Amino acid sequence: MNLYEHTARTVASLIENGTLRPGDRIPSVRRLSLDAGVSASTVLQAYALLETQGLVEARPQSGYYVRQPLRPVLARPQPSTPRRRATRVDVSELVFTVLDACRDPKLVPLGSPFPAPELLPLAILNQTLGAVARRASAASILKDLPPGHPELRRQIARRYLEFGCSIPADDIVITTGAMEALNLCLRAVAKPGDAIAIESPAFYGILQVIENADMKAVEIATDPQRGIDLGALSRALRQRAIKACFLMPTFQNPLGALMPDDAKRDLVALLEQFDVPLIEDDVYGELHFSKARPRPAKAFDRKGLVLHCGSFAKHLAPGYRVGWVTPGRYRERIERLKFMNTLATASLPQAAIAEFLAHRSVDRHLRPLRQTLMRQLDGMSAAVSRYFPAGTRVTRPEGGYQLWVELPESVDALELFRLALDHDISLAPGPIFSAHRGFGHCIRLNFGQIVTDRTRAALRTVGELAQTAPPGNRRE
Amino acid sequence: MNLYEHTARTVASLIENGTLRPGDRIPSVRRLSLDAGVSASTVLQAYALLETQGLVEARPQSGYYVRQPLRPVLARPQPSTPRRRATRVDVSELVFTVLDACRDPKLVPLGSPFPAPELLPLAILNQTLGAVARRASAASILKDLPPGHPELRRQIARRYLEFGCSIPADDIVITTGAMEALNLCLRAVAKPGDAIAIESPAFYGILQVIENADMKAVEIATDPQRGIDLGALSRALRQRAIKACFLMPTFQNPLGALMPDDAKRDLVALLEQFDVPLIEDDVYGELHFSKARPRPAKAFDRKGLVLHCGSFAKHLAPGYRVGWVTPGRYRERIERLKFMNTLATASLPQAAIAEFLAHRSVDRHLRPLRQTLMRQLDGMSAAVSRYFPAGTRVTRPEGGYQLWVELPESVDALELFRLALDHDISLAPGPIFSAHRGFGHCIRLNFGQIVTDRTRAALRTVGELAQTAPPGNRRE
Repeated sequence: MNLYEHTARTVASLIENGTLRPGDRIPSVRRLSLDAGVSASTVLQAYALLETQGLVEARPQSGYYVRQPLRPVLARPQPSTPRRRATRVDVSELVFTVLDACRDPKLVPLGSPFPAPELLPLAILNQTLGAVARRASAASILKDLPPGHPELRRQIARRYLEFGCSIPADDIVITTGAMEALNLCLRAVAKPGDAIAIESPAFYGILQVIENADMKAVEIATDPQRGIDLGALSRALRQRAIKACFLMPTFQNPLGALMPDDAKRDLVALLEQFDVPLIEDDVYGELHFSKARPRPAKAFDRKGLVLHCGSFAKHLAPGYRVGWVTPGRYRERIERLKFMNTLATASLPQAAIAEFLAHRSVDRHLRPLRQTLMRQLDGMSAAVSRYFPAGTRVTRPEGGYQLWVELPESVDALELFRLALDHDISLAPGPIFSAHRGFGHCIRLNFGQIVTDRTRAALRTVGELAQTAPPGNRRE
Repeated sequence: MNLYEHTARTVASLIENGTLRPGDRIPSVRRLSLDAGVSASTVLQAYALLETQGLVEARPQSGYYVRQPLRPVLARPQPSTPRRRATRVDVSELVFTVLDACRDPKLVPLGSPFPAPELLPLAILNQTLGAVARRASAASILKDLPPGHPELRRQIARRYLEFGCSIPADDIVITTGAMEALNLCLRAVAKPGDAIAIESPAFYGILQVIENADMKAVEIATDPQRGIDLGALSRALRQRAIKACFLMPTFQNPLGALMPDDAKRDLVALLEQFDVPLIEDDVYGELHFSKARPRPAKAFDRKGLVLHCGSFAKHLAPGYRVGWVTPGRYRERIERLKFMNTLATASLPQAAIAEFLAHRSVDRHLRPLRQTLMRQLDGMSAAVSRYFPAGTRVTRPEGGYQLWVELPESVDALELFRLALDHDISLAPGPIFSAHRGFGHCIRLNFGQIVTDRTRAALRTVGELAQTAPPGNRRE
């Protein structure tokens, strides 16, 4: 690579990672020449290259500015149109193939379900864990049996209050991560063979929980921005025996969709009408890009029909495996199912998180984390816009760390997943998010991992593979 | 109480707690007079009282000796004769009533399922947890996903080797306590509605797991000393479709029964013949009173049909919630069920136990623990023999910390449980150990809690209540 190409690349990566955003003025030729220790003519050559690439534009008398992306901002995906029938779920094999791929630390983790642990306050938490371990008394074993560590439940109740939910600590049951909470909730409200309404696409973990419980999934049309289509849900409730709704109204995985408050209120009112419980998976709520944390549907629950599931895994401590559920009228049943499933959740991790929440500002940690996620979202969207085939659509999530990409219909996401693996890149292909393996031309990208030059190169590679890959023999 | 009565009580409690055992010489009159600072005539009066009570006997020219108990040693319970039909399990309500009672720290915990945390090396373990927490790297989250912490699995494999099982570390899956392991195993080998063979009486946790999975229990006759009756099991296997066996061949809870090696070998051979898997719950194996740890049935497994479940909760760290399963041919299925049930087990508790096992001698901790349990077993057996009604039978376990007491038929254990609660004493009544709520005149007593004067007084109270309680309207 020539020196001017190298200089251009440096500036390009500042644009891709969002340090320089559309409309920003880039450093003057003189300034960059001094800073980078290259000649002014090298910088001029570099800027000319960037101009050719459509990344910057020269404005007379003023300098160079970051352009709006070459193509207009990519369109957002359309609302889904899932099949109408209830489907036995059988996605596990595929999900495990995909997740196994994410475990290899050598891969670029575009398909990862996890946030980068480096972005979380693990050092402080582990230090806190050490401190509570030194002080722990033997008697805590009895105290921390279900419903769980009393002080942790008080701290969770306090946090609920901050975003508009008044929940007594006694109504909270601690679980071994949100995954256990989801399992317990489904078993508490439905039986094998029952039909459960879910979003389309849906979080594969929800599909697995339904499969594990031997129930059926009914996928409901879902808008990538506003979440589940209440009209479609209402029709489904009228047309068949739906035993429960199992949704992520806040920063849905994989879409990132956020139901507005009104829609959440209407959702709860609709379900009350049919006396159908809502299992609300709300593990991304703390990772919002707007000013305030969105209220959960639970905030509008007057009849105890909403089982609200949370976790510390996405924004604080993944390895601690501490989640919870606020099960409304199903509290006793959930507590007993918890007891029968794993007896109790490890005691000291609960105590450590309680101590962290009581004495540290979780928001002081969350603010920079949210900033980083927003910046990385911008960078990843820009790279997708630049490298992916024409016709690609992409979501614009307002929280979380997952980006949903709808490629042209001709692209086979499973084939793309396999090709990317050969290039040491993991992806989450669309079909793992659907009971009937739909979304065969979609992929989910993680922007919560540390974004490096290698990440950007990987996005370029995926884009190239999507451009050139022969269409597979995709069903749908 | 007079001074001589007080002196007699002191000596009596040394006999009851096993410090002085049958045949031991008790202190000379002169020695005790000096030690206790009372007159020789007071000691003489005290010894005369003890003689009247049948606790000691005078031998001419020699002194006073602890007598064999007044009645000959209590008889052992007879093998059980359970009903033949498969039973839908519905014990949970009753179990929860009993367990709720055990959670009150004010009660004398005769019904507790836990060992006294004071007897376990929790201080060292918590210190170790603090140390591993300080050193932990963020990357461990991926590493500790199922099957779990690699070094912990290596340490468990090493321990297996010490008692005659050659198990590769890769064949071990870490779980959130043994309770999760039992749930995963049952779901891996059977479906709702299937019939599962269990001991009679059976651990209520096994009954709950079967209830939770919506399966049926077939109780098999079980000998309080030698465990399940292989003849009866063989007949059951021939007569009906048994989908799995779910047993505790080593220190069965509640009987304490230990199947001899030969019987374990025959059990595995029998199940091989019918191609029926064995879920082996082996959480008490480390708490043996004989020289060597009994080998599990897994040691005789050649076809991968035995799913062996262990835990650190009974002998090391109850609150850490770390257990495991060695699932033989069901390994992949178990790993996936684990993933779908709780995703992963908390990372740092796994690391702390691995570190403890690698650098500390677990046996150096276990030896005094086993001694304490044996001494407390002697004391509790003596107290039962002394205070409980004539006709009472009691087990003589060779490990664990649970004593099974068969009261005269007229005693209603559920009524006794309620009466004892009024005296701030918890008990585990027999019916929680049976799918058809048999064992209505039996109770389980915990001798793994710290035995104090209050414990001994409680045993006396329970004995008195059993003597005088009106028989309830017991079914069976």
